[in-house]
Amino acid sequence: FYRLIDSNLLPHDRSVCAPQITVYDQEYFQGRRMEFTACCQNIMECGMENIRSLKVECGAWVGYEHSSFCGQQFVLEKGDYPRFEAYSGSNSYRIERMISFRPICCANHKESRMTIFEMENMMGRQFELCDDYPSLQAMGWMNNEVGSMQIHSGAFVCYQYPGYRGHQYIMECDCHGGEYKCYREFGSHSQTPQIQSIRRIQH
Amino acid sequence: FYRLIDSNLLPHDRSVCAPQITVYDQEYFQGRRMEFTACCQNIMECGMENIRSLKVECGAWVGYEHSSFCGQQFVLEKGDYPRFEAYSGSNSYRIERMISFRPICCANHKESRMTIFEMENMMGRQFELCDDYPSLQAMGWMNNEVGSMQIHSGAFVCYQYPGYRGHQYIMECDCHGGEYKCYREFGSHSQTPQIQSIRRIQH
Repeated sequence: FYRLIDSNLLPHDRSVCAPQITVYDQEYFQGRRMEFTACCQNIMECGMENIRSLKVECGAWVGYEHSSFCGQQFVLEKGDYPRFEAYSGSNSYRIERMISFRPICCANHKESRMTIFEMENMMGRQFELCDDYPSLQAMGWMNNEVGSMQIHSGAFVCYQYPGYRGHQYIMECDCHGGEYKCYREFGSHSQTPQIQSIRRIQH
Repeated sequence: FYRLIDSNLLPHDRSVCAPQITVYDQEYFQGRRMEFTACCQNIMECGMENIRSLKVECGAWVGYEHSSFCGQQFVLEKGDYPRFEAYSGSNSYRIERMISFRPICCANHKESRMTIFEMENMMGRQFELCDDYPSLQAMGWMNNEVGSMQIHSGAFVCYQYPGYRGHQYIMECDCHGGEYKCYREFGSHSQTPQIQSIRRIQH
């Protein structure tokens, strides 16, 4: 999936391509290999015990710790992930499992837009986001928590810590009607409303 | 350091403020506490054995695994970092040390601009970057490596894996004259030219 670029300025290439991911049951792209162009609810049903490396060929995907899109989640964008550490992102749980995954269909929205709220159920102070924010507090948000969120268009990934670190929560306008009314709806593994950085997911 | 924002749109607040960081020798902002407004070459010389949590009050900073700004490096933006995992970012080395740190002075450039090159010594195919790129390959870059870089203005953080994961390399126009001619100059811990995501550092 090599593309020649003539321009000297690296473009934001938003051309639509069919989602494609290649997974391997050993590190560094070794062992058994399978290609997917749609969601996989349980890699073990495909005869693979676990995924130990992967390449995203096209599109943006979400990987999950457990089957049926449960447990810790992590965004996967185009590129090479030779080991677990490359995609798990957070070392709090030391996840070494990725059992299900799916493409993020609304990641190719031209414009991503969401509102964050200070309190649950879309209450309290609110701000609209349409960019990438490595530190919400640097941008004027009052503390290290977000009470609830509404995704108007596109998809975002929210992180527990500044600089895109820690637990990830993938938020999409196509899921829950884009409404995340309290931190328990952020993800099946979410334990606190702590969110300190947020960015768009695009491909 | 609370700021009231009246606008409903969360602004990119680039107002200059004096860099300030508070470090603690225990997790969750407990134990001995020290405030800094400039670089610290060796926290042990301040009588602190290690840093186990921190708050960036203002500015963008770099933390280092060893004294005198050596070893693994990681960008620290405004916010709360209650544990090691919150700032180390990568779990490849399982660093549990942050011994020196300094503010990134050129992070308040209005416009950050850099050029990445396919090969060492600014050779081969090249692209100019002035935005955030969670996946260089999604933007048209040919592979998972960058041979050399020139920082024209501002500061960037380069990551080993897509989605701002893995080893970090802080690149500044004020260091090395902005020139990073081969991967050994990316950082004192760099072992490969593997770089798959890059973003600006701003505050």
